Amino acid sequence: MLGEFELIRHYFAAAACARAGGEVVLGIGDDCALLQLPVGEQLAVSTDTLVAGVHFPDPCDPFLLGQRALAVAASDLAGMGATPIGFTLALTLPAGDPLWLAELARGLDSMALDCSLRLIGGDTTRGPLSLTVTVFGRVPSGLALVRSGAQVGDLLCVGGVLGEAAGALPLVLRQAEADADVAEHLLARYWSPQPQLALGEALRGKATAALDISDGLLADCGHIAKASGVALQIERDRLPLSEPLRRFAGDAEALRCALAGGDDYLLAFTLPAAELVSLQAAGWPVQVIGRVLAGEGVQLIDAAGNEVAVSERGYNHFNA
Amino acid sequence: MLGEFELIRHYFAAAACARAGGEVVLGIGDDCALLQLPVGEQLAVSTDTLVAGVHFPDPCDPFLLGQRALAVAASDLAGMGATPIGFTLALTLPAGDPLWLAELARGLDSMALDCSLRLIGGDTTRGPLSLTVTVFGRVPSGLALVRSGAQVGDLLCVGGVLGEAAGALPLVLRQAEADADVAEHLLARYWSPQPQLALGEALRGKATAALDISDGLLADCGHIAKASGVALQIERDRLPLSEPLRRFAGDAEALRCALAGGDDYLLAFTLPAAELVSLQAAGWPVQVIGRVLAGEGVQLIDAAGNEVAVSERGYNHFNA
Repeated sequence: MLGEFELIRHYFAAAACARAGGEVVLGIGDDCALLQLPVGEQLAVSTDTLVAGVHFPDPCDPFLLGQRALAVAASDLAGMGATPIGFTLALTLPAGDPLWLAELARGLDSMALDCSLRLIGGDTTRGPLSLTVTVFGRVPSGLALVRSGAQVGDLLCVGGVLGEAAGALPLVLRQAEADADVAEHLLARYWSPQPQLALGEALRGKATAALDISDGLLADCGHIAKASGVALQIERDRLPLSEPLRRFAGDAEALRCALAGGDDYLLAFTLPAAELVSLQAAGWPVQVIGRVLAGEGVQLIDAAGNEVAVSERGYNHFNA
Repeated sequence: MLGEFELIRHYFAAAACARAGGEVVLGIGDDCALLQLPVGEQLAVSTDTLVAGVHFPDPCDPFLLGQRALAVAASDLAGMGATPIGFTLALTLPAGDPLWLAELARGLDSMALDCSLRLIGGDTTRGPLSLTVTVFGRVPSGLALVRSGAQVGDLLCVGGVLGEAAGALPLVLRQAEADADVAEHLLARYWSPQPQLALGEALRGKATAALDISDGLLADCGHIAKASGVALQIERDRLPLSEPLRRFAGDAEALRCALAGGDDYLLAFTLPAAELVSLQAAGWPVQVIGRVLAGEGVQLIDAAGNEVAVSERGYNHFNA
């Protein structure tokens, strides 16, 4: 299947992204790729697999699939505050349709350019459709945004409006319809998430803990709480919900998507109040949604400060 | 499916390999793993996917599958002369059978200990069975064994007897039987290849080009010839064939397996004659099988120096 990987390279950014340069000493074509990091920096690595029929509908638009597969993986670099270097692609597919592959490559390429990621290697195999993307980034030693540093008294923040990708699922699966402008907006949030790489870099040395929201806000806040040995309190009425999502899904469902729907690929993070001011002054889209308390777990409260029962957590892929 | 990855970790080397230490600053459990390289070293990265029914029979012994999946990937580090650091595992599987997973983890763990590779991250998803392993190693800057440095006049060498894994396929597929000692020997070569990591490190600064034989000797020598802009001449009667393979398959089929069968995961490399002496004196299993000439492509000759027609090249997976 070398020919098919060659085809992907052919369609990939006029091959410019696959060549050596910067941290990429050796790209595609040998037993391994070679990366060279600047002195004082560490390598950040993350692997994500998307399986047809589980993480995306099959059939689907290969251009959108390429965009989404790379965005999902790149978002983990954002969650570490890492600067993107490159990625490898392990592609398993049932048949070699050149047009399909060309569209997939074009989608990958589009997101790779947005994220400044080079294609540095890969493997193409015959089998049921799935993509495994491994992303590489670099971060100054000691400045990576881990999950374990949240401090009592910190603010809990997110990088944008929540729940839109999860709210788009009925549209993705063609189980519902919406006005063209609403549908277009929500579908874009599902198919073309925008990894918050620049925000991640801006949070270095400022955020005490961070991650990208992929399992849903409640579940992911639970990860920070557990790793940091603290409790996170979320104020329900401060959750940023978008007008298109509320219009399409209604307030209750929009809230459910924001809390428990996955696939946001926005950053959630904790930081001291003093850092918030400078970030907002610099124009970063930082929304405060709660705070860090002593204790454990995640607590949801209403405007009066009363705890709200939470019945649904975690994963909300449409078939998992 | 976090629970299933947790299960793998649980069975993985008493978790010791998954913890931070050495080049692994941060292991499993955050958005990314973090690696720190010694100053003056580069990172080597390679990705390999094994799909059920294509790269291994389904069902199969999960312990052996774990061993093989990691060995295949680690062999690419050997082909670069890289010192192993760690690996990520993207596992897609149809159902969560704890016993099956435990055996898979035990097989991975066994090969990981043999290869000094730590499990640094991964992803478990629901779907048709496949494994994507991404391996990481380090190599002093400028000393990686690439494919492009073969010089006219160099010797062409391999690191051991050829064709045994390909020859074992009828046994792997239970299409043939053999005496117990022969079957055991050949099946071990298929299921538990031993990546030549130490040999790869020993070849740094000595070999002018190198790779691991995965597509078959002729095809892989073709890769060196093309990348280096030279011709490689292989002397048929110098090819190291094992007694068990000849006994099981006969001389003609043994030769075919050595030339065109994939899955050897031994090193093939070129070096000046002067380097050969020091390597053999140090006890490395280096076998000369030919030499580097001006020209292009791969040429097979018999003992009289006459060219032998080559009709079959490249991949020989049982279903590809």
